[in-house]
Amino acid sequence: MKLQVTQENLNRALGSVARVANSRGTLPILANVLIKTSNNRLSIAATNLDIAITHYIGAKVTEEGSITVPARLMQDFVNSLPDGTIELDLQESKLHVTTDQYKSVVNGIMADDFPVMPAITSGKQWSVDGALFKKGLQQVVFAASSDETRPVLTGVLFQTAEGKLHIAATDSYRLAEKNLGANKEDVQLLIPASAMQDLLRVIGDGNDPVQVTHDEQQVLFQVGDVELVTRLVDGKYPDYRKLIPASFATEATLKRSDFVNVTKVSSLFARESAGSVTIEVDESKGEISIRSVASQLGENTATATAVVNGSGSITLNSRYLLDALNALSGDEVTFGFNGKLEPTSLRDPKAADYQHIIMPLKS
Amino acid sequence: MKLQVTQENLNRALGSVARVANSRGTLPILANVLIKTSNNRLSIAATNLDIAITHYIGAKVTEEGSITVPARLMQDFVNSLPDGTIELDLQESKLHVTTDQYKSVVNGIMADDFPVMPAITSGKQWSVDGALFKKGLQQVVFAASSDETRPVLTGVLFQTAEGKLHIAATDSYRLAEKNLGANKEDVQLLIPASAMQDLLRVIGDGNDPVQVTHDEQQVLFQVGDVELVTRLVDGKYPDYRKLIPASFATEATLKRSDFVNVTKVSSLFARESAGSVTIEVDESKGEISIRSVASQLGENTATATAVVNGSGSITLNSRYLLDALNALSGDEVTFGFNGKLEPTSLRDPKAADYQHIIMPLKS
Repeated sequence: MKLQVTQENLNRALGSVARVANSRGTLPILANVLIKTSNNRLSIAATNLDIAITHYIGAKVTEEGSITVPARLMQDFVNSLPDGTIELDLQESKLHVTTDQYKSVVNGIMADDFPVMPAITSGKQWSVDGALFKKGLQQVVFAASSDETRPVLTGVLFQTAEGKLHIAATDSYRLAEKNLGANKEDVQLLIPASAMQDLLRVIGDGNDPVQVTHDEQQVLFQVGDVELVTRLVDGKYPDYRKLIPASFATEATLKRSDFVNVTKVSSLFARESAGSVTIEVDESKGEISIRSVASQLGENTATATAVVNGSGSITLNSRYLLDALNALSGDEVTFGFNGKLEPTSLRDPKAADYQHIIMPLKS
Repeated sequence: MKLQVTQENLNRALGSVARVANSRGTLPILANVLIKTSNNRLSIAATNLDIAITHYIGAKVTEEGSITVPARLMQDFVNSLPDGTIELDLQESKLHVTTDQYKSVVNGIMADDFPVMPAITSGKQWSVDGALFKKGLQQVVFAASSDETRPVLTGVLFQTAEGKLHIAATDSYRLAEKNLGANKEDVQLLIPASAMQDLLRVIGDGNDPVQVTHDEQQVLFQVGDVELVTRLVDGKYPDYRKLIPASFATEATLKRSDFVNVTKVSSLFARESAGSVTIEVDESKGEISIRSVASQLGENTATATAVVNGSGSITLNSRYLLDALNALSGDEVTFGFNGKLEPTSLRDPKAADYQHIIMPLKS
């Protein structure tokens, strides 16, 4: 293998794949990235056996070949190099990396030993707008659970209903759902949230469409020069739609930034009580106020003006409230609830494609 | 106590003192800040018994008084409040904090219990230019030791020689010394480096002169609205000047940014060998090159052009080298050394007021 590549391209590719490589595992080669030529392209790939990411970049290849090298060293090294051309020259299992100023030899492991994810040979294929997909995934993925004892809740559900594709995640305390619009295929996929976090990290801010291909075991995402394959999560996802209330006895609409600020301040006094804050909505005053009490430190009441329908109060975890408020994107937010133990809802009054449900705490 | 203060001023004062407060100590009141009126000023103070920091701010005081409140809560709380006026109103031991939107009650501990550092009633007093002092301290303080088994090396030495004030620190592996210019008093002070780090943090970017007052036990720094008192370190400082070579068999002068870059890249291959890199200076080629070897991962040689006098090679810890290069501030740096076990020197060829010495590693 012998080729020339720009520092910028190689650095970008290593930056997107190297985090998947894991130096703490039992298989040393999983700490490496696979570097492989194919015509005048270079693919840089890493896998942890659950997911695999490949990034393709242009290169001037004079001799085809492949090798795996330590991911972290290679990434840090290329990142430290100045702009300009880098020459890669493989001699036996040693990769010679040369620039004007630097001559390095990086010890590799032969590429034959690198594990490959099985190819998806048959299955469904569809695509979705890149910007919408990215935004929707960001609004949903954090609501998934990290508790491995209920594996289905660690996934993000991709599901079509009435011709529309919805993505949803819940950890049973809160739920986020986004409508990604019409989809030509019927879809029912449960994808690890951690893989979706990796995908968000690597797809960048471009507007390339996202191409999705899947069979019973795996799903492949292709975005621009990047490919991510991940296994699917087994199991039956709960029928979350039953949770979403159809109407609310109490609703307050206010500036989202106001709601964020009063929640942040209140949460400081809620550290002792695991984030518990009580929200009171007062129709006659046109106010929403948040109260938190720390037995040792003191107490706080923070108030914001709101357009209110119906009075009432409810107790929530302030962290979930902040997560939801940050996931919304409009200037205003509508907060609705019914009884003290029934699900509450946050939504943008001007955008019906995203909703966020939080279960209340006992107060 | 009853007063009005701006969020900006109170936030700035809490930001500078609150880090000294320590909630993990045995004395609960040390986790608090002392808030105290005096005419139309408010002082905010914190102490850990070794050092005390006080920040004075303007306030509209309608009722004198004082109280201590939890430092972290108060800092986070005031930091979260919007710009504008904050009213503080003490009722028994409860501090009522009120703005347009927020009403809080913070539980305090009576100020009588707050420990006070003894006053410096007699001693020497002198001052030094603020910008020079700050720059010099930054160039020196990181070279002090954090190893408490040799307490003198955890201090920064302030010492006059031939009418000039020098500050110096060493951990016995490297040494930094700055000349702060003429000083009217004869000074010999050993000040905890940690207190000097705190001082750097609080004095900001202003150009206020630094007023220094000290007796046998303590030293007081006054800069603008901030006061810091610290105990001194006991013990006899080593005669570090004997370490500094008078001349060098090999010297290389190069762009500081080039030296930083080649050192950074080399250090990546020096992780296995505790940062050990070998520097080779070649007079005939007019080059300085740094070589590092990782038995597992590979090896690197990085080269930069330099103006060279005399050839030779020496092995150093790359972290110390980077620290020194970052502490220097000119465009160029002169690196000089003699035998393989003798001290090496880094200095700005255009500024004689700062020098940095690094002891070599056995190679």
